[in-house]
Amino acid sequence: MGRDTGQHPLRPTLKKMPRIFKLTIEYDGSAYLGWQRQKDPNTIQGTIERALHTLTGRHVTLSGSGRTDSGVHALGQAASFRSNTHLSPEDIHRALNAILPDDIVILSCHEMPEGFHARFDVTSKCYRYCLLNRSLPSAVGRQYTWHIRKPLDVDAMREALRHIIGTHSFKAFEGAGSPRSDSVRQVYRAEIISRKGGRLDFEIEGSGFLRHMVRNIVGTLVDIGLGKITADDLAKIRDTQDRGKAGITAPAHGLFLVRVNY
Amino acid sequence: MGRDTGQHPLRPTLKKMPRIFKLTIEYDGSAYLGWQRQKDPNTIQGTIERALHTLTGRHVTLSGSGRTDSGVHALGQAASFRSNTHLSPEDIHRALNAILPDDIVILSCHEMPEGFHARFDVTSKCYRYCLLNRSLPSAVGRQYTWHIRKPLDVDAMREALRHIIGTHSFKAFEGAGSPRSDSVRQVYRAEIISRKGGRLDFEIEGSGFLRHMVRNIVGTLVDIGLGKITADDLAKIRDTQDRGKAGITAPAHGLFLVRVNY
Repeated sequence: MGRDTGQHPLRPTLKKMPRIFKLTIEYDGSAYLGWQRQKDPNTIQGTIERALHTLTGRHVTLSGSGRTDSGVHALGQAASFRSNTHLSPEDIHRALNAILPDDIVILSCHEMPEGFHARFDVTSKCYRYCLLNRSLPSAVGRQYTWHIRKPLDVDAMREALRHIIGTHSFKAFEGAGSPRSDSVRQVYRAEIISRKGGRLDFEIEGSGFLRHMVRNIVGTLVDIGLGKITADDLAKIRDTQDRGKAGITAPAHGLFLVRVNY
Repeated sequence: MGRDTGQHPLRPTLKKMPRIFKLTIEYDGSAYLGWQRQKDPNTIQGTIERALHTLTGRHVTLSGSGRTDSGVHALGQAASFRSNTHLSPEDIHRALNAILPDDIVILSCHEMPEGFHARFDVTSKCYRYCLLNRSLPSAVGRQYTWHIRKPLDVDAMREALRHIIGTHSFKAFEGAGSPRSDSVRQVYRAEIISRKGGRLDFEIEGSGFLRHMVRNIVGTLVDIGLGKITADDLAKIRDTQDRGKAGITAPAHGLFLVRVNY
């Protein structure tokens, strides 16, 4: 009875376990409706899944470390998928880059131990937000910065960043639409990483992020830079847990998912 | 006899002289067929001239400091035009930026003394060329760099740059199509201005440039970086005055016209 598997009859027939691969991905989000697969084919997840289908001949589900919104970029998004492919990670890496459009680049492909999952195993993430603070907008690189015309008080913004660091409820900075039951997150690092020629780049690294959290924090920081509120108001806003108190959601195109740590 | 001009009858009737304006312009050349007006409306010159027509109600001819090729960017192109407009330079500046698309930004508008011409009065220009030297291409910023996959010997390239500096015939680096009778140009400065994260940015400043001169020099520098020829070969190639000896024309999208001096 049963197929001859060529194995000892008393040994249970083991279904071949699919292999697990992790991709690190850079993308320019300008032309995409964000990470998550939708009916519209123009998402990062959907585009890479189609490339994986072309490559393996089978439907593959790609699990990202998390979603990125429409227009958000990534320098190091991470994602995992399971496949019975016999291709090596090097072959998958090369082939995906040959198939994918220019605005999505696979930076690495590694085979991972059984059980690895790009979303559930995240330990921390780093985001960058880029402002251009000068009277005139830029033509070159305009798709990567939020232009703030009026001069910003950078010292006040830097001072406010310390209210972001630590373990807090970030509910006041959570976008509507998909509230999490637990809005407490730990931010390890929040700093200005460069300031040159009108550019003002922030990085925020933490255990996890609520929807729109970085963009809402940046919108509030800009209010501080413009003198509408003080640096210490950021702590007060944070503690109200009231989204209505925080600043606007900074535009998607200034945001980069820099790195996902496991 | 004659119209009453309100002037002394013996003073000749002066036709009102048009005013001369100088624009400094930043543009992302990705979507354009270059600077020069053509039948195709999608040129930088044509786009700004249409905006000036909208603004002044008259046809305006815009004279650039020189052409930039299709896909080349500018951080500080200069151009001049004559107009009888009563608008102030500040008003023209503001209004043009309101009319123009996002990928063209007027950085300044000044009224100039009679006789000023953006092409004939140039004393020097500065160009930048941006390479990305890493095994993988980039998704973010790919429209602004030439990707060179194999490792470049940057020291050899830096050494070769000294053969560019000085007064030479640059005929070996002149593109076909519009040869100048005089191919001697003076290069004041040719150097690597930054090297970070795989980026390798060059600047070349000189009295003037032949067609494709910077791109052909960069193509030759890359041959030196790849070890195909030596740093000193650049001087030999230069002195042959033979375009066939130099490297390929580096792609347009890595080139920026940084500044035009008067």
